[in-house]
Amino acid sequence: MSRKEVEEKLVKLGKKIVSDIEKGNNPAVEIPIRSLSNIVFDEKTRLLKLGDKTAKRYFFNVAQAKSFMQTLLVASFCRDIVKENIHTSIRDMYYNLKRTLEDSDENTFDEQAESDPIIVDLETSLGVLREQLHLIADRKGVVAGNVVVEDRGDEIDWSKLGSGGWSIPSAVEDIKFKKVKADFILVIEKNAGFERLHEDRFWKKYNCILIGTGGQPARGTRRLIKRLSVEHDLPVYVMTDSDSYGWYIYSVIKSGSMALAHASDELGTPNVKFIGLTISDIEKYGLQKSTIKATEQDLKRAKELLEYPWMDYKEWKREIKLMLQKKIKAEIEALSARGLKFLSEVYLPEKIEKKQFLP
Amino acid sequence: MSRKEVEEKLVKLGKKIVSDIEKGNNPAVEIPIRSLSNIVFDEKTRLLKLGDKTAKRYFFNVAQAKSFMQTLLVASFCRDIVKENIHTSIRDMYYNLKRTLEDSDENTFDEQAESDPIIVDLETSLGVLREQLHLIADRKGVVAGNVVVEDRGDEIDWSKLGSGGWSIPSAVEDIKFKKVKADFILVIEKNAGFERLHEDRFWKKYNCILIGTGGQPARGTRRLIKRLSVEHDLPVYVMTDSDSYGWYIYSVIKSGSMALAHASDELGTPNVKFIGLTISDIEKYGLQKSTIKATEQDLKRAKELLEYPWMDYKEWKREIKLMLQKKIKAEIEALSARGLKFLSEVYLPEKIEKKQFLP
Repeated sequence: MSRKEVEEKLVKLGKKIVSDIEKGNNPAVEIPIRSLSNIVFDEKTRLLKLGDKTAKRYFFNVAQAKSFMQTLLVASFCRDIVKENIHTSIRDMYYNLKRTLEDSDENTFDEQAESDPIIVDLETSLGVLREQLHLIADRKGVVAGNVVVEDRGDEIDWSKLGSGGWSIPSAVEDIKFKKVKADFILVIEKNAGFERLHEDRFWKKYNCILIGTGGQPARGTRRLIKRLSVEHDLPVYVMTDSDSYGWYIYSVIKSGSMALAHASDELGTPNVKFIGLTISDIEKYGLQKSTIKATEQDLKRAKELLEYPWMDYKEWKREIKLMLQKKIKAEIEALSARGLKFLSEVYLPEKIEKKQFLP
Repeated sequence: MSRKEVEEKLVKLGKKIVSDIEKGNNPAVEIPIRSLSNIVFDEKTRLLKLGDKTAKRYFFNVAQAKSFMQTLLVASFCRDIVKENIHTSIRDMYYNLKRTLEDSDENTFDEQAESDPIIVDLETSLGVLREQLHLIADRKGVVAGNVVVEDRGDEIDWSKLGSGGWSIPSAVEDIKFKKVKADFILVIEKNAGFERLHEDRFWKKYNCILIGTGGQPARGTRRLIKRLSVEHDLPVYVMTDSDSYGWYIYSVIKSGSMALAHASDELGTPNVKFIGLTISDIEKYGLQKSTIKATEQDLKRAKELLEYPWMDYKEWKREIKLMLQKKIKAEIEALSARGLKFLSEVYLPEKIEKKQFLP
């Protein structure tokens, strides 16, 4: 969707309100409901999505007048920054829009917790991403590989960035892929793992794109994985710690999250495969001395994962149950017990060659 | 210090132990003491430093035998990775060195909390940085500007990285500055601030190097600031939130921290100046509506800052006392109340032109 189209959607929203007023109707905005009751797992796309329940937000309604006003304030703000082609953070927006209404003690917004959900309201009702509204999220994530992209007029070669790699920006919609030479994408949860693989030039040796997420990937990183995978038909392998949190990260990359169910089409990549660590790996690679006792929290989350329809694969059930039974977990770094280059020279090549992935 | 020299220092340590044994002496390593009692503020360099108290760690000493063994294990590990020219994280090192000693239940290390301080022991006793031992810290921080660097054989132009910027690596020792065209360095605590200034091409318009730290800067980022400032004689202006935590970040960039007092020469940049936000800015720029009530924790930390000899400047005392009196704080984003480009087009240019800095 082009910037022009996003702007038109915002203008259309405004015109609709004007037309309500002119017709003498109660001005209203229709917004999809985002509570759990309206979040569904779409078997066909294998993505978490919003259902089709919506609610109307009216101007002439004591309970809704304020959030109606806030919705229009945010929409108008977004229209301005999209038009001017500038980006900003949701916190900056909050400060920018916060003011006291004339002849009253009433503020437009009292805290950011009021403006944040309005942004999601707009995303869902207009069917656009927050990044397309030019509201950026915190950046996190780094990438290296045989890829050349064009971004804001610069040509950036991801294979020529030394030890640093390219810091993945918050909004990757406008990035053009000029050259993509890769057989697959390897996503790794830990920065230390990224550094090790990057230093060993793993991406060069195995002709892949290497992405480090530094924990739960930021929206920009998720979107980049999706775009690269879809637009260049590349398989994606994800590596996380062998624990509930790591596996949850995997499930979010794959199927989206409940909090961002409205954006799963853009952020979720259902075809990703899990390369490790699994609990089975611990025995297979002799890492027994390098495990950690699972906490109550770990076990609780593991049980939750067992219930997720989007993690309903027999291979996953086996691994999760193995964890619950052994009450252990292990980090990616545990592989270093077998040598610092074990990850890049043995573990990953073996898994990829033998296609030992979890779905 | 070259890789060769670091390796020689490690080898010399080993040879000293061998010589102790051959002479029939109790093998020992001499290690500077790092407790508060041995941390001093050096008025001359304006840096926090370790004093000259040291302690000896002996092999034949029931209380010290284990940590003596651990010290040599870590030293030997570092010698290997320096020699092989590979880098790794301290967590990977821990896993790599962890094992059960033959014919015993005793592990070399039971947890990473045991191996981490040994690294600092080596840093201090050998007078080298952890990065020079090839042990990397987590990366964080991003940079843009009219600079070309050489890193691992790649030439990287910081002015041609689109919206992404260059992700600052953990170890910046080996980076060569090929071209540095800048009048000053601007360090900003918040990622959102970096993004805004980067989008407005602030670094181009004002011929500076723009560094985003994303909170308390990582070691690599601090070292990069120091190297750029010293090697290219550039003034550094730091921008943080107007609160105790932001000001503490400033004090760490400037004078080093107690935890890393041994590395202040490499990580601290005493000439940095504080560009804002100050509490006075709130009134000056009409941000009264955008302040936040200071918490008890904020006030407690502010009182601590008042006691730091390295923050003993009348300008700072005035600001800190103003905060304690008004019991408020403000974020960088608060400037957005005056418009999204207020930071890049009014606030910073005005401060820089009028040299309105705090020491």
